[in-house]
Amino acid sequence: MAAHVTIITLGVTDVAVSSLFYESLGFQKSSDSQDAITFFFAGAVVLALFGREALADDAGVGSQGSGFRGVTMAMNLVSPGEVDAAFARWVAAGATAVKAPQPAEWGGYSSYVADPDGHLWEIAHNPYMPLHADGSAQRPE
Amino acid sequence: MAAHVTIITLGVTDVAVSSLFYESLGFQKSSDSQDAITFFFAGAVVLALFGREALADDAGVGSQGSGFRGVTMAMNLVSPGEVDAAFARWVAAGATAVKAPQPAEWGGYSSYVADPDGHLWEIAHNPYMPLHADGSAQRPE
Repeated sequence: MAAHVTIITLGVTDVAVSSLFYESLGFQKSSDSQDAITFFFAGAVVLALFGREALADDAGVGSQGSGFRGVTMAMNLVSPGEVDAAFARWVAAGATAVKAPQPAEWGGYSSYVADPDGHLWEIAHNPYMPLHADGSAQRPE
Repeated sequence: MAAHVTIITLGVTDVAVSSLFYESLGFQKSSDSQDAITFFFAGAVVLALFGREALADDAGVGSQGSGFRGVTMAMNLVSPGEVDAAFARWVAAGATAVKAPQPAEWGGYSSYVADPDGHLWEIAHNPYMPLHADGSAQRPE
């Protein structure tokens, strides 16, 4: 089995609140979810929501931290129009508008939003990265 | 297309150095990679490495930040023995040992390492989350 990512876990202030936020955006909640942790099937990867303190504690590190986290998630879509629509949907659901949809210098169309805990998502169209039906990237030939 | 994650991007100090680190661990580099950004096929999700400043700039946010980032990636494996082996391989490759492999209270077997920029990875076996051949999680019935 080649090296891979199975799960991305976001530390959040309130698992129930953040779960409702992501459910409202169309993320599909797994029946494996519990009160303390939510698992979503986010395309081909699992997106988990776990208390921020609990996540730090699980890793055995301090939970203090601030500012830019150096990590973003991208949800790629099949057209600029879908980016506009998704950006509007996220903001309507309570996400913070970080960067309005706009053409990117690399030839795509990109925007950024932040979830209720400030986790950054890029919502983008990349014409050079074709997608499978589940939103995962196709491998180049 | 349901809500999904296509790409996880890690902001790093040196894209070339971090790319070699991840390549040495068996992540498969995409031919779409460039000097400024590396794309890996990390199972069913794309793992990208991009300069930390460049990533903040792309989102239009400040790059200052410190401490716990509130985000972890998990690489799930099919047995505790594979967790032990992967943990040793990552540490030998230069990862920081954060939490030695050990039984977890939720019934699995888990460890944590940090990459050269401090990004946290859980390397774990979860007997309740069966895996596809690419390391992505199977959906429950």
